[in-house]
Amino acid sequence: MNYKDLFAGRASVRAFSKDKALEDSELDSILLAASHAPTTGNMQLYSVVVTRDKDAIDRLAALHLGQPAAKGCQAALTFCADTRRFGAWCSARKAKSGLDNLSGDIMAITDACLFAQQFVSLAELEGLGTCYLGTVAYNLDGFCRELDIPEGVIPLFTVVVGYPEGDIPAPSDRLPLEAIVHRGKFHDYTPEAIGGWYVAKEALPESARFIDENGKETLAQVYADVRYPEAQNIKISEDFRRYLKH
Amino acid sequence: MNYKDLFAGRASVRAFSKDKALEDSELDSILLAASHAPTTGNMQLYSVVVTRDKDAIDRLAALHLGQPAAKGCQAALTFCADTRRFGAWCSARKAKSGLDNLSGDIMAITDACLFAQQFVSLAELEGLGTCYLGTVAYNLDGFCRELDIPEGVIPLFTVVVGYPEGDIPAPSDRLPLEAIVHRGKFHDYTPEAIGGWYVAKEALPESARFIDENGKETLAQVYADVRYPEAQNIKISEDFRRYLKH
Repeated sequence: MNYKDLFAGRASVRAFSKDKALEDSELDSILLAASHAPTTGNMQLYSVVVTRDKDAIDRLAALHLGQPAAKGCQAALTFCADTRRFGAWCSARKAKSGLDNLSGDIMAITDACLFAQQFVSLAELEGLGTCYLGTVAYNLDGFCRELDIPEGVIPLFTVVVGYPEGDIPAPSDRLPLEAIVHRGKFHDYTPEAIGGWYVAKEALPESARFIDENGKETLAQVYADVRYPEAQNIKISEDFRRYLKH
Repeated sequence: MNYKDLFAGRASVRAFSKDKALEDSELDSILLAASHAPTTGNMQLYSVVVTRDKDAIDRLAALHLGQPAAKGCQAALTFCADTRRFGAWCSARKAKSGLDNLSGDIMAITDACLFAQQFVSLAELEGLGTCYLGTVAYNLDGFCRELDIPEGVIPLFTVVVGYPEGDIPAPSDRLPLEAIVHRGKFHDYTPEAIGGWYVAKEALPESARFIDENGKETLAQVYADVRYPEAQNIKISEDFRRYLKH
């Protein structure tokens, strides 16, 4: 088995089978194996809320702005940074958690991400399709209300899961290795290097389409002005600041 | 191949071979495949600084408080949240990045974690041993100085890598699935549930040893008072706050 080809060939899946069922037991066995992902000091500072009921998936999909990947999934897993369980353990054992601060939150975000990605890798190796939905950040309060998420727990993203309908999409493009790997020391970015690294992405047919559809001059403007605009991120930042501890 | 058993059986490796060499080309091919990890909007908001030179590894190991896993590794990979490259691309393409804020930083931390864990999984599947070192957070300024890391890039952790010396350790314990999985809604923690979930961990022989060595009454006190004490985390939080954008 060539694992490198498998990992390099992966892609997010947004259309799921209506015929082949995903059993609870299969999902649980993947989650259990994924829980052996590395975790800070073996504290497992994460939780996952598993949504399987069709009506509940529809409500979650609405919070995810009606994305088709959410509407048609077989299971929606909302991964959370969670310092609350550790705190409850300390309280029950004559101790006071030292994680009720930004450092604890960052440990928990890291733990949740490693667990989620281990889940995703394993699900994909088992033939399932997955897609991360970052739209949790657009409405933190709404997701907390819908899923009864209490203080000390921060929903980060939802991973939608199911057996793929049709073929797995082709893997999307990535920057050349030299753009992301710094050898020995960090080598700061020059306009010349940037030009070289992004030229292949900018030359893709869909990039020309995105630029045209949005009436922009460059692909970077599509990202900066339309997809991830500053005003939207400032709003999300203010929300996150309420959720992160001081 | 039973992937679930492979993932459930993984463990961090802290002792590395002095005989079997890890080639740069092998490391690069794993990093390239891992770069197909999911990433926010395909922005790849991460970087990795690869340390291979023996003297440089020794300097990094000293910053990591002299941990043996760092001193003896074959390569040290410091994973960073990086909104700087995206910003440089925007600047070079008549756009202004909207990610210079906390929301952008959280996207970048997430991206870096997913990439790192994909690297770790693949390295382990290829027979390498790895260990995350979270001690970067104890001295953010020191790591940035040592690795020439500029503004807009946040070092998160180092993953040390190498061919294992001796057997892979047994996997460490994890909480039962019911402690981390919430079905339908988040079910808040009760002292009764906590008692049940942590009893196996507390009953491990090493837990009794940790309690004894540290003169404590409970395992939770070892975590809260000795390993992750509040004063240390408050210091780390203050440092992180300087690195996170507003």
